[in-house]
Amino acid sequence: MQRVERNPQDFGRVLSSMCTRPHPAARDAAERFLATNPGDPGTYETVASLERRAVDLLGGVVGLPDVAGYVASGGTEANIQAVRIARNRFETDTRTPNVVVPQHAHFSFWKAADVLGVELRTAPLSDYTANLEAVKEQIDEDTVAVVGVAGSTEYGRVDDIPALADLADDVGALCHVDAAWGGFVLPFTSFDWNFASADIDTMTIDPHKLGQAAVPAGGLLARGPELLDELAIDTPYLESTSQVTLTGTRSGAGVASAVAAMEALWPDGYREQYYESQADAEWLTAKLRARGFDVVPPVLPIVAADMPDRLMDTLRDRGWRLSRTGRDEARVVLMPHVDRAMLREFVDDIDEVFAEFDIGR
Amino acid sequence: MQRVERNPQDFGRVLSSMCTRPHPAARDAAERFLATNPGDPGTYETVASLERRAVDLLGGVVGLPDVAGYVASGGTEANIQAVRIARNRFETDTRTPNVVVPQHAHFSFWKAADVLGVELRTAPLSDYTANLEAVKEQIDEDTVAVVGVAGSTEYGRVDDIPALADLADDVGALCHVDAAWGGFVLPFTSFDWNFASADIDTMTIDPHKLGQAAVPAGGLLARGPELLDELAIDTPYLESTSQVTLTGTRSGAGVASAVAAMEALWPDGYREQYYESQADAEWLTAKLRARGFDVVPPVLPIVAADMPDRLMDTLRDRGWRLSRTGRDEARVVLMPHVDRAMLREFVDDIDEVFAEFDIGR
Repeated sequence: MQRVERNPQDFGRVLSSMCTRPHPAARDAAERFLATNPGDPGTYETVASLERRAVDLLGGVVGLPDVAGYVASGGTEANIQAVRIARNRFETDTRTPNVVVPQHAHFSFWKAADVLGVELRTAPLSDYTANLEAVKEQIDEDTVAVVGVAGSTEYGRVDDIPALADLADDVGALCHVDAAWGGFVLPFTSFDWNFASADIDTMTIDPHKLGQAAVPAGGLLARGPELLDELAIDTPYLESTSQVTLTGTRSGAGVASAVAAMEALWPDGYREQYYESQADAEWLTAKLRARGFDVVPPVLPIVAADMPDRLMDTLRDRGWRLSRTGRDEARVVLMPHVDRAMLREFVDDIDEVFAEFDIGR
Repeated sequence: MQRVERNPQDFGRVLSSMCTRPHPAARDAAERFLATNPGDPGTYETVASLERRAVDLLGGVVGLPDVAGYVASGGTEANIQAVRIARNRFETDTRTPNVVVPQHAHFSFWKAADVLGVELRTAPLSDYTANLEAVKEQIDEDTVAVVGVAGSTEYGRVDDIPALADLADDVGALCHVDAAWGGFVLPFTSFDWNFASADIDTMTIDPHKLGQAAVPAGGLLARGPELLDELAIDTPYLESTSQVTLTGTRSGAGVASAVAAMEALWPDGYREQYYESQADAEWLTAKLRARGFDVVPPVLPIVAADMPDRLMDTLRDRGWRLSRTGRDEARVVLMPHVDRAMLREFVDDIDEVFAEFDIGR
């Protein structure tokens, strides 16, 4: 094994990731199920039944008790599979199906378009969320899905999901909601985002992000099993007979840790964490504004601030893991491992850098 | 956590899986890297450098020291991605590209065809391997890839890879080798299967199968990085700028455990295990033949035997995990957790069932 100086699982200065330290119960479960494969449910029956439990628990989070779905490798797989469901329902071989996404959709939709051979149509935003008129203009008779984002990757913003679902319904398209990151905080907000509040068909929600499960544990959910049937491929030489997942062999660790995390944290643990993280986001916003930075108001626990390149580079040299938005802002994702003490240290470092280098703002 | 009666990681009677108990070093490494994400290499630098090490080690196994590639979620992803590389190199929008596979190709190629919108053409076998004339008949100017199987899922058979690579080359198609299962035993055989012995372009080889790594650790390898460039998608809001993988967030546990397993076992540990498993396969074949079963000769450590349904059902009731081939034979995969003692117990159980129920053969 290669020698490493820094503990690879040390989240002490990680502000850039949408993954986090797994909950202790999730870590234990992952270790117990490392050598299992839910992709072969006939052989690995225990983890297969845990996967059904995971989907049931996710149903509670998203407001649809009998939701269909499976534990995917992550949000990218779930988004690809949702687009694949929509594409496979489309009847013609001669026209190219299209999917309409608001501009802030995750890059996995571009990957889905390349993989699946669909046209991706993007609609501009207004005030960081989907502009409904712009979305409507992109929709036509070859539209197979309209995507809504519930917790955008850059700014944590939530589209008007019920309105997008109605636009999809008008042309017989599916409505897919990408709540990969936001799904475990949105239940504690007033947003209309889930299966109970809008006529949506499929959803991405990742236990290994704010759900505090171990990687890999994403989630693809569907209003009914017939939607998943669009994905079925025959599986000879397994004890089961067909498979709807994109991957074959899958991680039992992810499945078991998702169940353990949700059993430990839903709903009270997630609620408390959300209140704490949101308060921290607002605290950080105030501190950064007091230092002259432009900050995008955090409606969910993500803070984006306009910082000079030289400052960002120096902070990175000091070990802070920071990523950028498409407009080059510094982006801080307030995952559960990011607490007030860590943020104080971050702000102190900014002050020190300013003092040392006299960087203008 | 749900109560389970049987240890979910107990491989004591598992004869059906192509996964196995991870090597102890692989398990340790997986646990140390559970909370890392090689899909975000800017943030998780240590596991990103381990992934480069994993690919270098795989290069040693497949006879191409500077091989390109990445650690995938498994063989299905790697096969899908190989077909995607081939499809994306194809120039036209108006014709449907096709991929030619011998009939014994893994079901993931059918999944790849559905996902990627390519035509899958299957060629019949002769003596359990690709019939080269039949493959040649399927190839035309729209063929983008010809697939060879190096260790088939049902019978562990190896196609004539150099000949298939030549057929691909004749029409400018890529040659992909699926060595997902066989890749860690084939180096100790006389088969021509790898980058050194044939003009192949891409390969699937899974550390989490015979490589004894923890799930999920598959491998997609390519002769050069320009082949992987066909898969690149821009990645805003990560610290890196593009991504060639099919999934987004990925398992650091898989990557780290692949490195640990290969460092512990390549080549001596794998060689010894292969000799032992192959001897066991031949022992089991002899025992089954002595009891009147038709057994397909095992050229690699997989035994397929024609067993009556009632016998298979009774063995399953006794806890044996057995799967079937497409011709309904019982299939025993001699993974490292399957040892002579376990096989003796299996044969004893067969004898007991015969004695109890007087099942005819």
